[in-house]
Amino acid sequence: MLHLQSTTRPAWFAQVDAHLDEVLIDHAHCEKKAAGTAMNLIFHYVEHAELCREMTVIVNEELEHFHMVLDLLQQRGIRFRRLRPSQYGRKLNDLVRKQEPQRAIDRLLVAGLIEARSCERFQALADHVDDVELAAFYRSLFESEARHHSTYTRLARHYGSEEVVEARLVELYAAEATIIAEGEPLARMHS
Amino acid sequence: MLHLQSTTRPAWFAQVDAHLDEVLIDHAHCEKKAAGTAMNLIFHYVEHAELCREMTVIVNEELEHFHMVLDLLQQRGIRFRRLRPSQYGRKLNDLVRKQEPQRAIDRLLVAGLIEARSCERFQALADHVDDVELAAFYRSLFESEARHHSTYTRLARHYGSEEVVEARLVELYAAEATIIAEGEPLARMHS
Repeated sequence: MLHLQSTTRPAWFAQVDAHLDEVLIDHAHCEKKAAGTAMNLIFHYVEHAELCREMTVIVNEELEHFHMVLDLLQQRGIRFRRLRPSQYGRKLNDLVRKQEPQRAIDRLLVAGLIEARSCERFQALADHVDDVELAAFYRSLFESEARHHSTYTRLARHYGSEEVVEARLVELYAAEATIIAEGEPLARMHS
Repeated sequence: MLHLQSTTRPAWFAQVDAHLDEVLIDHAHCEKKAAGTAMNLIFHYVEHAELCREMTVIVNEELEHFHMVLDLLQQRGIRFRRLRPSQYGRKLNDLVRKQEPQRAIDRLLVAGLIEARSCERFQALADHVDDVELAAFYRSLFESEARHHSTYTRLARHYGSEEVVEARLVELYAAEATIIAEGEPLARMHS
């Protein structure tokens, strides 16, 4: 699904069931970070008009999702707070090469990869949780995150040939599958 | 106007007339930076629900303005590019204290101060430029920037007493009037 090379392992659902509140809080932070990533890309590639336009759409949508999760937390009496993040984002960002245009390709592919994994997790959670409202919420986010995945992956192709970008995509998605397979002790959206 | 302690000096208009293209390009960068500032405040004060909500509105509006200026540049055949920024933002940010909650007060007051000066400049430009379309554009931005000024100034009061925040506001606005009086060789929105 969406270029991903693995599906979520059963152990993750056990983590979610044991710490659903933390997963929800982490989800809010993930939406905020997704908005921040898109904003950073505007700053770094400001002369790329199409990128700036697409990133603006993503900033707005991710911030909207951030507030949707905050509202959900409030409705459920869960106090929103800072949380130690999973290592997932850091591990992926460590794979981003330093030189342009490789850096642009990697940043865009990694951003698209995180959106893809989020999609996969939303779908998995929607099928897994008994809570009907929560399942509907996860389903409602699926479409826009899948669209963001496509946008990032398409924009990466502005910085390299079809073959170069495709080869790098396969490498990064393989690395991501390894990171996901390692798992993490903390219950997080991307643990 | 909007707590400002000075109005724009005549020499600035001469800079604008000589380098209107650069002022327009700088304007686009200023709108982008304003969006970035609001996003950074979400990241730093994420547990402050009202601040996050207000900053989200500002991020959306500033990015919208950013694209309005980009469109204007394109209509006029002016190539958008990176530009050495004025020293104004850096000089103001140097005044921000390091310790919380003083840091929050200063960041919010400085953000509100930049919005106030932008307002003053938009008004001055609208009255100054012969170009009817450009004058209308500057007038169209005035109201939202004035609202952002009020939002920032109001949020600063969450981090200190009315008296403490008011005293700091007077200090910062006096420092800003000095910075503006010094002027700069580059023609910029805040030179």
